[in-house]
Amino acid sequence: MPVKRKPDQSIIEALNKAQRIAFGPVLFQAVRSALATGLLSHISEAQDTEDEAARACGLTAYAVGVLVDVLIAGDVLTKAADGKLALTKTGQCLLLDEMTRVNFNFTADVCYRGMDHLTEALTEGKPAGLKELGDWETIYPAISQLPHPARESWFAFDHYYSDRYFVMLAEELRDRLNPQTLFDVGGNTGKFAAACLKAMPQTRVTLIDLPQQCATACSNSILAPFADRFSAAEVDWLKPDCFPSVGHKADVIWMSQFLDCFSPEEAVSILQRCKPLLSERGRFAVLECLVDGQKFPAAGFSLAAVSLYFTTMANGNSRFYRRNDLLSVFKNAGLDVEYCRDNVGVSHTLYILKPTAAK
Amino acid sequence: MPVKRKPDQSIIEALNKAQRIAFGPVLFQAVRSALATGLLSHISEAQDTEDEAARACGLTAYAVGVLVDVLIAGDVLTKAADGKLALTKTGQCLLLDEMTRVNFNFTADVCYRGMDHLTEALTEGKPAGLKELGDWETIYPAISQLPHPARESWFAFDHYYSDRYFVMLAEELRDRLNPQTLFDVGGNTGKFAAACLKAMPQTRVTLIDLPQQCATACSNSILAPFADRFSAAEVDWLKPDCFPSVGHKADVIWMSQFLDCFSPEEAVSILQRCKPLLSERGRFAVLECLVDGQKFPAAGFSLAAVSLYFTTMANGNSRFYRRNDLLSVFKNAGLDVEYCRDNVGVSHTLYILKPTAAK
Repeated sequence: MPVKRKPDQSIIEALNKAQRIAFGPVLFQAVRSALATGLLSHISEAQDTEDEAARACGLTAYAVGVLVDVLIAGDVLTKAADGKLALTKTGQCLLLDEMTRVNFNFTADVCYRGMDHLTEALTEGKPAGLKELGDWETIYPAISQLPHPARESWFAFDHYYSDRYFVMLAEELRDRLNPQTLFDVGGNTGKFAAACLKAMPQTRVTLIDLPQQCATACSNSILAPFADRFSAAEVDWLKPDCFPSVGHKADVIWMSQFLDCFSPEEAVSILQRCKPLLSERGRFAVLECLVDGQKFPAAGFSLAAVSLYFTTMANGNSRFYRRNDLLSVFKNAGLDVEYCRDNVGVSHTLYILKPTAAK
Repeated sequence: MPVKRKPDQSIIEALNKAQRIAFGPVLFQAVRSALATGLLSHISEAQDTEDEAARACGLTAYAVGVLVDVLIAGDVLTKAADGKLALTKTGQCLLLDEMTRVNFNFTADVCYRGMDHLTEALTEGKPAGLKELGDWETIYPAISQLPHPARESWFAFDHYYSDRYFVMLAEELRDRLNPQTLFDVGGNTGKFAAACLKAMPQTRVTLIDLPQQCATACSNSILAPFADRFSAAEVDWLKPDCFPSVGHKADVIWMSQFLDCFSPEEAVSILQRCKPLLSERGRFAVLECLVDGQKFPAAGFSLAAVSLYFTTMANGNSRFYRRNDLLSVFKNAGLDVEYCRDNVGVSHTLYILKPTAAK
């Protein structure tokens, strides 16, 4: 007599997880619509039934029904026996948690359509998805011209992961290194430069970036009060012989989420070209998100996913570094790690580096 | 003294799940690239390191690295201490399980880009994503003209969820109802008609569908041996006064995944127009996937997700039914359920219906 076996729970769970991936874009867009139409926030406040929520949000019962079905199956909503809807904790994160919102909008507005070209980007080494946003070779010269809402979501992402920690980091640089001169390499709009100029009233700060970024920074009103101590120098690091022209040396060369915009070979070349710009006791201060340096799995997953933004949308050849790969870059550039601290800001690691002593 | 509290595990888990959703499209595309480049199948066979896998698949170490990072974080791959990569059970499902592959390709090739228009589809009640595939009002007249690879993935999906059970279902209809005449409403290319003609050597079968489907079916070679017992009748059910013209009545009117292509109001109207076509002891036999009739959560999630295909790509107003909604359609059309069986085929429910007796 054949024995009827129970299905293997681990296979059922694996099939479950696999369908979550296979329909991941659908669940994503369902959440996006539930956010955009106000359905999620209404349910969060009112815990209505489907019909009540449909009326309140100006949606058809059909529209709410198809969204609710997939959001319940996707663990974003629950429905009680009396038909009242509520958000799960996951749903609350999607509605209310800033990191989640920033990540979500970055995927939706910057990456979603371009990510459809990932295979091409991987095989050609070019940001093959960027054409969905505009006609550029890389995203960097184009950031200020990105179409709405990609531009807003890009800057919100940048702000969340980077510039909201600038005051704290500027104070840390002051307390730890007390530089008289600081070069902010890849300084973008000048926000970190302004934080440094404020935290260190004697320090001269030079922003070093592409011509367009330098122009933007120089007209940035937050830098106006510091005009006597601020300057900018243009450089295009992707031209192998290009150096910035600055009349003095740097006690600190600061690079915040800058090296992740380049391939390891390019990063080594940039660090090597920067070394002669250091003063006698000068140091590099490098801030990076390490994909394998995260305390929480959500952060590691997020960084690994955002690496594919670099692949598909940004430049086709950079990524958030793994720790050992970044240490190899430092070593190949002739730099020793003097200090390292994880969990700086939201998910960053701070390195202070000095040139390797000649043997 | 402040007590340092451990982070709430349920919040950490919720943040995790929320990032899985927020970067769901990225993980999806990473899996797609790992399938398309042969990386997943190579790892499944060879359990290589990243460098070995890159060489074997003709990819750069960078390309394999960014994919591997997100696939490990997404629970598709594992990496051992010696660097050897392997597939998780979820990864095995994505590579090898037919249902998962069919679902995955359906999302990738039919739905991904169109799903970016979900909010518009929900608020306008139109398949706003269909324009990503071509210029049509609904997908139904266009299925045979869909561009590659959408067409192949659409038919593979249809085959997996529907026509591979046709022989079994034709035999069940024979054994249960033994019809002399059968109308296959929404019979599409004629595959089920052929199965019935083969299983029931005395039965006359009439396929009823849009003109284009009728033409396709009539030229379908699998029906050629049954020319004396097969006919087709054109109808466009969306025109409220449209009836098919057939010279005889039906002992069975068969509708397989047909009513889910229409709104409940349209479905009631179609059933009401079909009722006069039944012979004295005639029955409807209706096969549907019920979103809340599934034994396994993966199936319920999949159906809920595919409902949004109807919303965004197909017609803007249909869906896989919930059981009570389908029962309401039957009731409003004046039909009683004579028999019902769940778990038919992969995830279907079979209803046999008879006209409600006049009171």
